[in-house]
Amino acid sequence: MSWQDTLTEYIAAFIDGLAKSGVREVVISPGSRSTPLAMLLADHPSIREYINIDERSAGFFALGLAKASKRPVAVLCTSGTAAANYYPAVVEANLSRVPLIVLTADRPPELRDVGAPQAIDQLNLYGNHVRWFREMALPEGGDNAKKYVRSQATRAVSIAGGLMPGPVHLNFPLREPLVPRLEPAPYEQSDPLHPIVLKQHLDVSEETINAVADLCMQAKKGLIVCGVIDDKDFSAAVLQLAESLGYPVLADPLSQLRSLSDASDLIMDSYDAILRSEAAKTELAPDVVIHFGGMPVSKPLALFFKRLAKVNHIFVDGNGGWRDPHYLSSEMIYGSETIFCKKLSQFPYPKNQAWINNWKRVNALAKNTIRSHISMSDELDEGKAVSKFCELLPPECAVFIGNSMPIRDMDTFFHANNKNIRLFGNRGANGIDGIVSSAIGVAVHYHPLFLLIGDLSFFHDANGLLAAKQHKINMNIILLNNDGGGIFSHLQQAENGTHFELLFGTPTGLNFKHAAALYGAQYSKVFSWEDLEASMLDAVQNEGINIIEIPTDRNKNLQNHRSLWQNVSQEINQFFQGET
Amino acid sequence: MSWQDTLTEYIAAFIDGLAKSGVREVVISPGSRSTPLAMLLADHPSIREYINIDERSAGFFALGLAKASKRPVAVLCTSGTAAANYYPAVVEANLSRVPLIVLTADRPPELRDVGAPQAIDQLNLYGNHVRWFREMALPEGGDNAKKYVRSQATRAVSIAGGLMPGPVHLNFPLREPLVPRLEPAPYEQSDPLHPIVLKQHLDVSEETINAVADLCMQAKKGLIVCGVIDDKDFSAAVLQLAESLGYPVLADPLSQLRSLSDASDLIMDSYDAILRSEAAKTELAPDVVIHFGGMPVSKPLALFFKRLAKVNHIFVDGNGGWRDPHYLSSEMIYGSETIFCKKLSQFPYPKNQAWINNWKRVNALAKNTIRSHISMSDELDEGKAVSKFCELLPPECAVFIGNSMPIRDMDTFFHANNKNIRLFGNRGANGIDGIVSSAIGVAVHYHPLFLLIGDLSFFHDANGLLAAKQHKINMNIILLNNDGGGIFSHLQQAENGTHFELLFGTPTGLNFKHAAALYGAQYSKVFSWEDLEASMLDAVQNEGINIIEIPTDRNKNLQNHRSLWQNVSQEINQFFQGET
Repeated sequence: MSWQDTLTEYIAAFIDGLAKSGVREVVISPGSRSTPLAMLLADHPSIREYINIDERSAGFFALGLAKASKRPVAVLCTSGTAAANYYPAVVEANLSRVPLIVLTADRPPELRDVGAPQAIDQLNLYGNHVRWFREMALPEGGDNAKKYVRSQATRAVSIAGGLMPGPVHLNFPLREPLVPRLEPAPYEQSDPLHPIVLKQHLDVSEETINAVADLCMQAKKGLIVCGVIDDKDFSAAVLQLAESLGYPVLADPLSQLRSLSDASDLIMDSYDAILRSEAAKTELAPDVVIHFGGMPVSKPLALFFKRLAKVNHIFVDGNGGWRDPHYLSSEMIYGSETIFCKKLSQFPYPKNQAWINNWKRVNALAKNTIRSHISMSDELDEGKAVSKFCELLPPECAVFIGNSMPIRDMDTFFHANNKNIRLFGNRGANGIDGIVSSAIGVAVHYHPLFLLIGDLSFFHDANGLLAAKQHKINMNIILLNNDGGGIFSHLQQAENGTHFELLFGTPTGLNFKHAAALYGAQYSKVFSWEDLEASMLDAVQNEGINIIEIPTDRNKNLQNHRSLWQNVSQEINQFFQGET
Repeated sequence: MSWQDTLTEYIAAFIDGLAKSGVREVVISPGSRSTPLAMLLADHPSIREYINIDERSAGFFALGLAKASKRPVAVLCTSGTAAANYYPAVVEANLSRVPLIVLTADRPPELRDVGAPQAIDQLNLYGNHVRWFREMALPEGGDNAKKYVRSQATRAVSIAGGLMPGPVHLNFPLREPLVPRLEPAPYEQSDPLHPIVLKQHLDVSEETINAVADLCMQAKKGLIVCGVIDDKDFSAAVLQLAESLGYPVLADPLSQLRSLSDASDLIMDSYDAILRSEAAKTELAPDVVIHFGGMPVSKPLALFFKRLAKVNHIFVDGNGGWRDPHYLSSEMIYGSETIFCKKLSQFPYPKNQAWINNWKRVNALAKNTIRSHISMSDELDEGKAVSKFCELLPPECAVFIGNSMPIRDMDTFFHANNKNIRLFGNRGANGIDGIVSSAIGVAVHYHPLFLLIGDLSFFHDANGLLAAKQHKINMNIILLNNDGGGIFSHLQQAENGTHFELLFGTPTGLNFKHAAALYGAQYSKVFSWEDLEASMLDAVQNEGINIIEIPTDRNKNLQNHRSLWQNVSQEINQFFQGET
């Protein structure tokens, strides 16, 4: 067998193994050492390839694809620093439990650590941040080699999409010549010899359910908290559980529960504003809390719970992780969240209607106060911008929410509705990096997609827009431009002015009109609420990339946020004074 | 002592330790967890801070500062994916032996691996790619804590700038509140209690020198090869050695030997073109070779040496590394290159004038052929562009050379001269990433600075330009735009057209005029050689960022390179036929 045939059959068997295990998309960055993998991926009939020149953006683009498609997605780059550029996306995929198959080409052993070009130490390149690392064997001929390489593909996909989804890394040492054979077609003969993994969920035992049900029977004031979690079956099951128990559900924007086609009146969406009031923290304190999903964004919620250390906090984690930064958990249950909800719903619980009504009334009061506060302001501040943005969102759309201020503003202003809007974000490591590319990955699968993002985060990953341009992906970017790091104004370092603008404010003075022109995006700058409405309606009609920039002022944003929260607290304090 | 005083004194002692050990520059990316380090770095009277919002660019910017200043440079970022963005620069610093002090802020132990925001596993984040990693203690009061933290600072600088320079990583767990005390001034009291490391070089023993001298006495055809090395003392010493031995010096552009104020006629600058000729490879074969520095860029040179496996190849590495990808070394000498040259020069060697003259004549012939080939072409191709660029460079300037094609074209067209031009490049991992930022770091210390870069590489790190804009750094960018990955046209995959443009050509269609506008750069597009001359003269006069774009065609570039090399080979073959 010729070297080219050996190389081709070995690599093609691997790629076919990925495809047979469910991989449908790959993001490829150009390079030479990766040639056999790149060409044979491009040649595979059931894998779609996306080119992305900046590997950092490529990693996040793949992350977005995987989040949206709920399938493992592969990324491929050549040897050297290219592979190091994947690191931020790998870290995020690890913490947000997203399946990524990272494929890196490498020099063969004899070209390592001897000063050869583009040769870096790629073994365990991502350290503890991947679920699995394999240094692959050099390409070899024969059935045993094919069995080996197919099995590695299956296991890679299985581990990446397994009980605790996340990134895996396979490093391919490759010798020249690197060009594979494309004729006769490498995938014509179907090769049935590959293992398949049939994925299971963690069950929840009757014993566990009975114990939790007993607890809930005795509890008088229960709450359900849903942080970051994205699972349609879970959404239905947790609402059923809430109804059965009579527990209000504090739903983070990324729980998907605030926007279902059939909204439940148990969904609480204004707890972030509510729990800034001392009276509310006392009057609305629960005696049992069931937690699902990643940590909610709300800081007042976290502070509220920290005062409730003696209350039963039941955490359910279907992936068997540990997400409890405030050391609240009295029980940590490793079992499918959906199964847990379904099983726990099947008991007749006594309901505390006063408790439910109290939460509902306070939530409605907070929401009304927010709305009237917003309606009184004519200024282009971030709060009102996000509030209007939420109002204008069309049904059945998707929103990718940037980190730092956008996710916090969505927490305040994205109220429960029936529009069935899907929300995405990167809440594993909460970085402002890679957001544009992650959103573009989601936009491949969801249309229309809106990205709500701040100026520093947009700048950080503006390179990501090249892929949207090249692959003709439609997306709408709402760019909240306060010229710098707005979140820092909320912190203590803003009070003493020394070095503040230099180190934290960091105004860039960039005119993003030029970035839009670079990537062939439609661009509009919004100076009034009517402009925003017109631009958003326009954007949904336009193909390609639409950028709607909203210029705001950091100091005004801060003042308006503070006065909003004061208003809400006042109203709530008055409400509870009236009650007693 | 208050917590703020404890925090301040601990962190200030660390930073003062860095300063006392020689750190003068730090590149800071904004963040909250890093507040005490950022504020106290900004407050230190002898450390200059640069803000860089994109941590990937920040890492490379620091790398450029360190290359130019020949001092360890610190970088600081907050916790989370921010730190992962440094990875490409860390990898490059490791392989190109550049001292970087990477400082990352982290959550304290109790907020790790529990789902807290922006908390990733930062321990050993850069794996084998750093010389030293320390997880720092939590800030504490008292003299012992200060002694500890100062000692860590000194050791970090000492290891980063030590015998094998490279990156080090210190991770700081920090608890809230994070704002340090700035009044009274934290650095007013001088604290003499810090250790200092007095750096030494590796000596070369008389025994070793005598053995090598014996070898050189017996050799009839000796060569010196200087790859990537940047040391003024070495430049003088190796020329003295070449004169003493009568050996031609094959000098890579990044050896700094092609452009000294007093050029030596032993410097060979056209071996890359010469060694494509079969006749030259036979006629110019040495019987001993002394190698200095990192691997030269020339592939023909590498192939030439691979045929000379039985010849004595003496490698000298002052840092005690191993840079010999072709397994040539008969002796690997770990000792200062400068001391080696000085000591070895002090013997009277017999000289083979015919050998020297042959090299000189062939080198002159190659250079003349290159020049006349270039002068005959009117087209805007990359070779001629780089040739003209080299001609137009003013004396005493600096050039940062991009990877992929620019470094190869400089190898062909940057001929020996007396202009005392300093050349820089990232030849550790040879990535196309981070080049813009590395060049900006160099531009802080060298003026005028020219960056020669291809379009994909420029795109990859265009974010780096924000720091140039914000810090008012002057630089001139020669942007060779062939709309894609030009180097791949030289490879085998270009021959079979399938998937080629998709995977390797990767045209972006970007109009870089808009990138220039985004960063407030002067921009001109060059359509003739007269344009280029005018633009370069203009650029040197202008403050700020100047971008001169040269559009070229990938296919024409390939054809012109090939015909150039054929011409040179023909001339050289004829020359040797005439000789025999």
